[in-house]
Amino acid sequence: MPQGTRDFSAAVIFKRNYILETIQTVFELYGFEPLQTPAIENLDTLTGKYGEEGDKLLFKILNNGLDNPSKKELVNTEFDKVLNGRSSKYITERALRYDLTIPFARYVATNFNQLTMPFKRYQVQPVWRADRPQKGRYREFYQCDADIAGSTSLMNDAELCLLYADVFERLKLNVSVKINSRKILSGLASLINAKEHLSAITIAIDKLDKVGLAKVKEDLSAFLKEDQVTIIEKYLTISGNNDQQLLKAKDLFNEVEEGMAGISELEEIITLASAEIQKTKQVSLSVDLTLARGLNYYTGSIFEVKANDAAIGSIGGGGRYDDLTGLFGLPGVAGVGISFGVDRIFDVMEDLALFPNNIFQGSKVLFFNLGKTESLTAFSFLQQLRHQGISGQLYHENAKLDRQFKFATKKN
Amino acid sequence: MPQGTRDFSAAVIFKRNYILETIQTVFELYGFEPLQTPAIENLDTLTGKYGEEGDKLLFKILNNGLDNPSKKELVNTEFDKVLNGRSSKYITERALRYDLTIPFARYVATNFNQLTMPFKRYQVQPVWRADRPQKGRYREFYQCDADIAGSTSLMNDAELCLLYADVFERLKLNVSVKINSRKILSGLASLINAKEHLSAITIAIDKLDKVGLAKVKEDLSAFLKEDQVTIIEKYLTISGNNDQQLLKAKDLFNEVEEGMAGISELEEIITLASAEIQKTKQVSLSVDLTLARGLNYYTGSIFEVKANDAAIGSIGGGGRYDDLTGLFGLPGVAGVGISFGVDRIFDVMEDLALFPNNIFQGSKVLFFNLGKTESLTAFSFLQQLRHQGISGQLYHENAKLDRQFKFATKKN
Repeated sequence: MPQGTRDFSAAVIFKRNYILETIQTVFELYGFEPLQTPAIENLDTLTGKYGEEGDKLLFKILNNGLDNPSKKELVNTEFDKVLNGRSSKYITERALRYDLTIPFARYVATNFNQLTMPFKRYQVQPVWRADRPQKGRYREFYQCDADIAGSTSLMNDAELCLLYADVFERLKLNVSVKINSRKILSGLASLINAKEHLSAITIAIDKLDKVGLAKVKEDLSAFLKEDQVTIIEKYLTISGNNDQQLLKAKDLFNEVEEGMAGISELEEIITLASAEIQKTKQVSLSVDLTLARGLNYYTGSIFEVKANDAAIGSIGGGGRYDDLTGLFGLPGVAGVGISFGVDRIFDVMEDLALFPNNIFQGSKVLFFNLGKTESLTAFSFLQQLRHQGISGQLYHENAKLDRQFKFATKKN
Repeated sequence: MPQGTRDFSAAVIFKRNYILETIQTVFELYGFEPLQTPAIENLDTLTGKYGEEGDKLLFKILNNGLDNPSKKELVNTEFDKVLNGRSSKYITERALRYDLTIPFARYVATNFNQLTMPFKRYQVQPVWRADRPQKGRYREFYQCDADIAGSTSLMNDAELCLLYADVFERLKLNVSVKINSRKILSGLASLINAKEHLSAITIAIDKLDKVGLAKVKEDLSAFLKEDQVTIIEKYLTISGNNDQQLLKAKDLFNEVEEGMAGISELEEIITLASAEIQKTKQVSLSVDLTLARGLNYYTGSIFEVKANDAAIGSIGGGGRYDDLTGLFGLPGVAGVGISFGVDRIFDVMEDLALFPNNIFQGSKVLFFNLGKTESLTAFSFLQQLRHQGISGQLYHENAKLDRQFKFATKKN
C-alpha cells in the first residue's frame, strides 16, 4: 500500500460518515448543492495555480500508449522537458486533483451560462498531494468545502460563520470561529509604507501562533525598519472583545482607507452573525487581527476554526476572494468559501470521546445455522427482519455451535 | 476536462445517491461492512492481475522528484524500460485503482489475522481505466461491490441472489437474475474432450447474446470438430424452466463429474433462494446455461442481472472464486461476490422514469431581502427553520424584487 494512503475499515468509516453527514446535512440546510468533479484533471487546469511548490506536489499521470516503438525517439526528447521541470503533453497531460477550489472554478467558468448566480455548491471528495507523509498528513485525504460564487454580499460571509456554528454545535465540539480581513492586513502594509512587502508580512504574521511574537519581530526586521516593526507589534497586540479590538484598530488605521474598509466589513459580518451564534452552546465568533491564512488567494474576510479543548491546528478555514474564475477566462466572479478539516475533526472527536455510541451499524441479529431445513426457515425470518430495516445474518455453515458462538461474540 | 470523465451536478448526484443509498442500505441489512481503499495502489499490486490488456489500461502515476538534475541520466535509462512496456520503480511505482476486487484481496491478505472470517465487505468507489471513451464507457466510473471472503458455503451464493432481488425490488426495476456455474462450462469442455479449449469455448459462448448461435458455432468450428460443436449446440439450446433445464443438463452430463457438481450446486442455491425471490414483484431467478461471464477468475457459480424493460447489457454480475488472495501470498481463501453497474442502472431508471419525484433536495424556503434590519429578522427565522431540518436561504442582497422573484423561480 502506497505511503501516505489509508484503508478505512468499517469502524472508521461509520465515524467519518457521522462527521461528513452532519456537515452535508448542514450544507444543504443552508441551500448549498452538491457537486462532484473527476479525480483526474487536465494538467494545464492545475499547473500554475498552487505556486511553484504546489506544482511539484501534483501527482502527474503518465500518458498511455508511450510504449509504441515508433514513438520512442520523440518520447525520449519530450521526457527531457519533464526532467527539466517543464511539462510535456506527450508524456503526461493529466494529474490528480490537488484541491477542490480549482476544479470548482473550472466548473463555474465552463458552465457559467447554465448556472443561476449566486451559485452555492458543496463538495466532499478526496484530493492528492505528493507531500512527505507524516503523522496526520496524508497523500490522499478528503476535503470538504462550501463556496458561494457570484456574490459580493457580506451576508454570505455571515452565513458561513453561522454554518460553522451549526456544524460544530451538532458535533458537540467546543470551537472558536476566528475572523479577520485581508483588507486589514493590506491596510497595515500601507500604514507602514511597505505595500511591496505585503506577502512577506502576511507570511511572518501567519507564524505568530507557532513561533511567538519575538521571532515574528525578528523575521520582520529582516526587511522592515524598527519603527515599521513597532507599528506591526502595536497591531498584533491589540486585545479585548470584538468591539474593543475593532475600535482600537480603527484608531490605528485612521487614515488608511483599505484598513478601514476591512474593519467596517468585519463589523457588518459580526452584526449579522453574532445574535444567532450567541444562542449556541459550543461556538464563539471572535475577531483575531493576527489571523493571516498563509499565502492563498483571499482578498477579503478570512476565517479559521480552532477546537478549544484540543492542542491541534485549525480544523477549518476559508475566506473571500475577488476573482475565482479569472484564471479560466471568466473575470469578475467574486466568492467566499469555507472548508472543514475532516481528518483533524476526526482526531479531536476521538480524543474527546465525542462520537455517539450508536454509530456502528453492525448486524443486529445472528441466526445460528442448525442445518438445511432450519436454514430455509431462518432465511424466511431474516428476510422479514430485513424488510423491517433490521440487519441480520445466518451463520454461513452448519458448524459446531461453539464456533458459531465465537463468531457471534466477535461480531457483537 | 479530461476525456471520459464527468462532472456530476446536484440533480444527477441526488439521483445517483438514491441508487447508491438503496444498494448500501441493503448491503448493510445483509451484514456487509463498508471498506474504503485508497485510489492509489502500488503498481506491483495491480500489474499482472488483469491480463496484458488490463495492464495497458492502468493509469500510471509519474514519480515525483524526477526533475532532480543529478538523476537525469538514470532517469533516461530507466525510461527506456517504460517505453518497452516494462515497469521502472524509478519512473513510476504507483497507479490508479482499476477495480475494487484486487484492492479487496490485498486488504484481506494484509489484514487476515485481524479479520473475522467469513468477512463480508461492500465497497462503493470510483475506478479508472485508460479505455477509449465512448457512449456509456468512462475512464473514471463507480464500482459497487459486495463480497464474502473465507467461506465455501453456497448459502452465501443464495444470499447474494436475494440481495440482488431486494435491491431491484426497492428500485422498482423489473429484472432477471440469471445463474450458471463455471463448473458446468468446464464439464462441457470435458464432455467433448476439449478441456484445453475451455477458455476459447467460454469466450465463444459469452458472445451468444450479441452475435447469435450461428456465429458462435462458426467460431467454435475454428478449433473444434463438428460432433463437438453439435454437443455444445445441444447444450446451448436446452430450454424450459429451472427444473427442466437442470434435468436436461443432467442427462447430457451424465458421466461428467464436474458438470454434475455444478448442476447440484445450482440446485442447492435455487432451493435456498427461490421461495423468497418468488415473493418479490419485480425479480425472477433463472438458470441460464449460456451465461459465461467473459474471461474472469470465477470458478463456481456465476450471476448476471438483466433489466427486462430495457435493451441494455447486464446491470450487475458476479460469481464464486476459489482463490481470492493467493496472488498476495495467502492461498485458500475462497469467496463469492457481486457488483452493480451503477451507470447503467442510472440510465435504465432515467429511461423508465423510475426516480421518485421527491429526490431533489433543493431549498424549501427563500426569504426575500428587504434591507438590513429585515435581514436580521429573516436570519433568525431561517435558523429556526434550519434547526427543524428545513432548508432555506435569504436572497443575498437587497436587490429589486423582480430579480429576487426570478431567482426564486429558477430555484423552484
